[in-house]
Amino acid sequence: MSPKELPAHMQRGHQTRERVMAQAVEIARSEGLEALTIGRVAALNDITKAGLLGHFPSKIELQLATVEAGREAFFTAVVLPALQAPAGAHRLGVLLRGWIDHVANKPGGCFFASIAAEFDAKPGVVRDRIADLMREWLGALERMLEGARNQGDLQEAADARLLAFELHGIELSMNLRTQLLGEAAAAAMAAQAMRDCVEAQATRKGKFALARGWETA
Amino acid sequence: MSPKELPAHMQRGHQTRERVMAQAVEIARSEGLEALTIGRVAALNDITKAGLLGHFPSKIELQLATVEAGREAFFTAVVLPALQAPAGAHRLGVLLRGWIDHVANKPGGCFFASIAAEFDAKPGVVRDRIADLMREWLGALERMLEGARNQGDLQEAADARLLAFELHGIELSMNLRTQLLGEAAAAAMAAQAMRDCVEAQATRKGKFALARGWETA
Repeated sequence: MSPKELPAHMQRGHQTRERVMAQAVEIARSEGLEALTIGRVAALNDITKAGLLGHFPSKIELQLATVEAGREAFFTAVVLPALQAPAGAHRLGVLLRGWIDHVANKPGGCFFASIAAEFDAKPGVVRDRIADLMREWLGALERMLEGARNQGDLQEAADARLLAFELHGIELSMNLRTQLLGEAAAAAMAAQAMRDCVEAQATRKGKFALARGWETA
Repeated sequence: MSPKELPAHMQRGHQTRERVMAQAVEIARSEGLEALTIGRVAALNDITKAGLLGHFPSKIELQLATVEAGREAFFTAVVLPALQAPAGAHRLGVLLRGWIDHVANKPGGCFFASIAAEFDAKPGVVRDRIADLMREWLGALERMLEGARNQGDLQEAADARLLAFELHGIELSMNLRTQLLGEAAAAAMAAQAMRDCVEAQATRKGKFALARGWETA
């Protein structure tokens, strides 16, 4: 049942939850998941603590829900448009360009880089979930690189795992330079570095497809 | 005047400070600079809060001193051995290999990646100092790349700024995979990615010098 078919009071509950989640993601992006206290999030949304606890019985549940909301926002903005593009290097171009745009234009930058650094030394369910989603994303990136290789857009010798490692690094480098150093040129440098990195492993046909995907993203 | 020439009571003060700083760096590496409260650091070192406040009159001064201690540890472990090696791609090999070893073998990983993510959205003197040191390091890396190019170890068209951007990204990617995902292979992948990255821009002579520096590091 989609939210539109819910009775009015449940629709309001759904809308409240969506609004709380969108805001929680923005807070966590800049300040981290530990900044999400029940009291603060309730006050920001003009609801009572008891009301918020009805949605999220504990801080950990609020943090976990925020991690899922961040994943969903990333999927919608970056992964979905790529899946709708032709497979191969074209899709890869859409994905990489979308990834840069999504991260570079956000105050606070990369949600997952921020919460990964925050939780990497804090064992528990929140850290485990962040690690699972990071593996999921790096796996998806590797599979898209393998797909591009399998259809002859990347050279047979291309190492999808190493390429994903490098592309992720370029994104992290861009994020640090944007957020900490305020370098306006970081997104353009990341775009050049990512394209250089893929083109070095691409076939002639793959280079054209990458450029088409990049430009139509 | 070196610490050895100080009177005994001042030598003890110097040793206390060194011990406190080394421990503060390790705490910040895993938990961040905000975990450095005067009370906790005093208790860990078995000294009174008043005694610690004699060294660091406020939490911010303790944080700033910790940032400097982290810089010094990095300089000693990574930059100094490179400066003692022959200039050019040989020096670059020593530097990059030393960088990977320094970060990969530390519980908590990269001190500066950790505190950069922690402070990038917290305006103030601590953030400013972290940003200055990050610029200093990236500038030093760029100058070593330019030095290698100027003596014919990298191709004339090599873009030192973009290469530094990529190498830093590889280090960040390694750090995230090691710390969050526990990937034991991350250091070896970073080594391969860094060497690929530099070799793609190196001359024949530069490739040999890079390999020599890498192996003797």
